[in-house]
Amino acid sequence: MTAHRGPGSPAFNVDAIAARLEGLEETIISKLIDRAQFRRNRRVYETGKSGFPGEKKRSLFELRLLWQERMDASFGRFHVPEERPLYGRLPEPQRHIELGRTGLCIKDFNVINRMPAIIRAYLELLPNICRPGDDGHYGSSCEHDVYAVQAIGRRVHYGSLYVAESKFRSSQSVFLPLMKKGDADAIIEKLTRKEIEERIVRRIRRKVVAMQANANPDVRHLIDPDVVASLYRAVIVPLTKQGEALYLLNRKV
Amino acid sequence: MTAHRGPGSPAFNVDAIAARLEGLEETIISKLIDRAQFRRNRRVYETGKSGFPGEKKRSLFELRLLWQERMDASFGRFHVPEERPLYGRLPEPQRHIELGRTGLCIKDFNVINRMPAIIRAYLELLPNICRPGDDGHYGSSCEHDVYAVQAIGRRVHYGSLYVAESKFRSSQSVFLPLMKKGDADAIIEKLTRKEIEERIVRRIRRKVVAMQANANPDVRHLIDPDVVASLYRAVIVPLTKQGEALYLLNRKV
Repeated sequence: MTAHRGPGSPAFNVDAIAARLEGLEETIISKLIDRAQFRRNRRVYETGKSGFPGEKKRSLFELRLLWQERMDASFGRFHVPEERPLYGRLPEPQRHIELGRTGLCIKDFNVINRMPAIIRAYLELLPNICRPGDDGHYGSSCEHDVYAVQAIGRRVHYGSLYVAESKFRSSQSVFLPLMKKGDADAIIEKLTRKEIEERIVRRIRRKVVAMQANANPDVRHLIDPDVVASLYRAVIVPLTKQGEALYLLNRKV
Repeated sequence: MTAHRGPGSPAFNVDAIAARLEGLEETIISKLIDRAQFRRNRRVYETGKSGFPGEKKRSLFELRLLWQERMDASFGRFHVPEERPLYGRLPEPQRHIELGRTGLCIKDFNVINRMPAIIRAYLELLPNICRPGDDGHYGSSCEHDVYAVQAIGRRVHYGSLYVAESKFRSSQSVFLPLMKKGDADAIIEKLTRKEIEERIVRRIRRKVVAMQANANPDVRHLIDPDVVASLYRAVIVPLTKQGEALYLLNRKV
């Protein structure tokens, strides 16, 4: 482990982490825009309606995510700390993955896994980005759903791990007592920077506008910048902070 | 078959087809931008270096595409005319797919399959959108490669099928004699509309600019709008016209 790396270690430089988080924003926005080109397609999310023979417990969306995670696991995706799967018991990687030291001080990255909450929030978001109705494009819809939740997951988990470790290194005296007490709420309060969060939300809004500025609304369904801004404010930012608290509460001191 | 549908049939309305093709442009651009966030990573494309045990013939990119196509086949993707796979002998769909009548008059959609040429052109494009070097993100690189070639394939094959059928319906007397002679070059010449092609290329360029306008170049690698414009001019448009000619030469008259 590399807990002896100082707070100035490049991997935990606050600006570098913020830059990486900012760089993930376009990816999230473009995945949501891609999904919005298809109708709501409720059937995709209904249990037992996947059409897969004998499959009674899962929706087509859940099956697609499971198959994607099995493939991704074989290619080694979940060795990367910020790539967290929804499902357990996935196959081992077929390739040897050279990760290098992450500098993170936690035994099991899955203690910060927020995928169930991300997926719940995403499914609630769908009616706000897609037009209602059914266009029969079930395969494309769940394909893009999977890419969108993976993009959101990467952002939430990257923040949960690296922001938390960085803040711990720069403010041990603030966080250590709260970690010892196991006080998640107090940790979240200390992690909160309202003005920075609002700056992120405004930037997201601007990016959604810009990324659609040259799209022809007759041929593309445009999404409402405020909806994505709200997703950041109400879901992505709070889930990241919860993940940071989980990291700190489970950090090997 | 629905060859008796008139040229005015909504599925073969020129404007509707052009609109659908235009709507696919943002998807292609955003996939290329996503890939460009990673380095060139040559190793991903080298035969036998995938790290998969016993896999000597394929690169990591080729393996990822094969696994993706196997999964997609199980979900029914290749029942959609414009979704063409690179690989043969893929699994049968697990779900029953309701396609509805396409109105296309061709027995095997794979006669217009341009995937090998698309992939060759894409791999040649990579050094022009990615920074050189190796960042170790092999899994992410080939994941985004696959999404990019699928997006380009969808555009090329949609055009090949629907533009060709539409032009046939509106100008049978022009195309029938050339189809009987099997004269692909003359067909391609008749399909060529230089001014429309240049308008598409200019629009692509503008979209690449707009979609990156609010990205922070310190945290995102931006791609050159001219590179994507050239991809359209030198690859996507010509391959689509070749696919249209293949469609017409194999059309059930």
